[in-house]
Amino acid sequence: MENVLIFGHKNPDTDTIMSAIAMTNLENKKGKNAKACRLGNINKETKYALEHFNQEEPELIEGVEDGQQVVLVDHNEFGQSVDGIENAKIIRVVDHHKIGDFKTSEPIYYTAMPVGCTATIIYGMFEQEKIEIEPKIAGLMLSAIISDTLLFKSPTCTDLDIEVGHKLAEIANVDINAYGLEMLKAGTDLSDFSPAELINIDSKPYTTNGIKYQVAQVNTASIEDVLKGKTEIENAMEDFIKENNEDLFVLLITDILENNSQIIVVGNRKDIAEKAFEVNLEDNMAFLPGVVSRKKQVVPVIDKNI
Amino acid sequence: MENVLIFGHKNPDTDTIMSAIAMTNLENKKGKNAKACRLGNINKETKYALEHFNQEEPELIEGVEDGQQVVLVDHNEFGQSVDGIENAKIIRVVDHHKIGDFKTSEPIYYTAMPVGCTATIIYGMFEQEKIEIEPKIAGLMLSAIISDTLLFKSPTCTDLDIEVGHKLAEIANVDINAYGLEMLKAGTDLSDFSPAELINIDSKPYTTNGIKYQVAQVNTASIEDVLKGKTEIENAMEDFIKENNEDLFVLLITDILENNSQIIVVGNRKDIAEKAFEVNLEDNMAFLPGVVSRKKQVVPVIDKNI
Repeated sequence: MENVLIFGHKNPDTDTIMSAIAMTNLENKKGKNAKACRLGNINKETKYALEHFNQEEPELIEGVEDGQQVVLVDHNEFGQSVDGIENAKIIRVVDHHKIGDFKTSEPIYYTAMPVGCTATIIYGMFEQEKIEIEPKIAGLMLSAIISDTLLFKSPTCTDLDIEVGHKLAEIANVDINAYGLEMLKAGTDLSDFSPAELINIDSKPYTTNGIKYQVAQVNTASIEDVLKGKTEIENAMEDFIKENNEDLFVLLITDILENNSQIIVVGNRKDIAEKAFEVNLEDNMAFLPGVVSRKKQVVPVIDKNI
Repeated sequence: MENVLIFGHKNPDTDTIMSAIAMTNLENKKGKNAKACRLGNINKETKYALEHFNQEEPELIEGVEDGQQVVLVDHNEFGQSVDGIENAKIIRVVDHHKIGDFKTSEPIYYTAMPVGCTATIIYGMFEQEKIEIEPKIAGLMLSAIISDTLLFKSPTCTDLDIEVGHKLAEIANVDINAYGLEMLKAGTDLSDFSPAELINIDSKPYTTNGIKYQVAQVNTASIEDVLKGKTEIENAMEDFIKENNEDLFVLLITDILENNSQIIVVGNRKDIAEKAFEVNLEDNMAFLPGVVSRKKQVVPVIDKNI
């Protein structure tokens, strides 16, 4: 039996890690020899959830060999995937993001749904295969949904995410609100991150019509606190886009209690962000009321203005 | 409620037509306002199946307006889709082909599986939604599976296609072999096609690394009979690639009783076909024993040799 590697995107968040673990659990129960992997460091929120459910971290991988069988969860764009993905054998994708110039040489399994969280889709796959979800795996999947939907409050959250979240909470025997707030709060402790680390906690590259841009997001209970390091953060963003030849970097500092975001914007094409969000940047900043979702409220409007 | 148009690829075959009808039936039962369409003439095999189950043809459309909501079945490559697809709003794809530079600006539903027939995937969607399939719809879906798998004999046929085929036959109360052979034979009557029509019955364009090529297929019970018109067919193929600026045209003449194919190849890049099939063309022809599947045995090997 060949070994299948299952992983989410670089700069892993809770959905990417938990979906890799849940999908691996499902494939193994179906008789496949699969292993969950990760493409970067575990953030504090994810670490809290893994420890809560007594689950070890997936193995860190730096790249994959030619012909390696892989399953991609929570992403499909090669720029966000493992080094060597171009020559790997992708056998399955499970994702909830837009599809970005995706291409295969043979038919594969591809399951995408416009829902708040990849784990919600994986729940449906367990159901379809009539395989029961263990309480521990249910807890990890619930953590992914809480994370991606900010406790069902993000505009990306769908009725299906809420329904599946409650079913998983029952299996895992977890009080969603109490556990969810603790988990989200664990993720907002940014105290021991350097500015360069902070802008890399949850950061993704995009390319649209030749424009290369980066959108990073940090969650916090106090935007003000994060802005104390604004100059250093800006410098780190400037360094990042210089190194990566990018045109634009948007950092979302998201208040998960109030559901608003402050953005910091740097790069040659700040005009794109100003047009996209219909704001005038002051000191490279703007406040975006009600904006919490990179996927639904940030990337599409940037793309439309490129 | 907005109207959703559901259609398969240009030069429709039985799977494309039946999957559009079945998917429309499913969406309508889920409460959507959907309409099945087609992008070209119905072939004789499909006509036989539609008449057998007393189903009218989907409506012919030439293009779609900007922002029109669409569901693509049995294809994903824009070159095979409706005119105007670039500016339509694709909300769902159900397909069993390789994925070719597919791109969306927002998350959508995308369900692909490496199975023999799109209708097999749609069966699973009815199951997941717990919606019963009517006997007539089951008969149409079974026709699609028989067509795409050549009565379960094509190398693209999977265990799932066979399993679903038998379940559908039971619902539709049809003898698979007797009905299947009649349907396939109805499709091999090429007598009233001009050469230009013949090469267009089931013909698809592909672009790989800048090379544009066409692969068409006709099913027959006698390769010899078809080859009586070889010179005229070659001329029609030459005219076609000149008009469409293509580099290569491969016509598969497939013996559905013996499961072999004769190919006729024209264009500037016949060398690609020779390398791909490891043959020396004689009079632009070669015999390919056991080759019956464009998707599995023709397009991937051409792509590998471009």
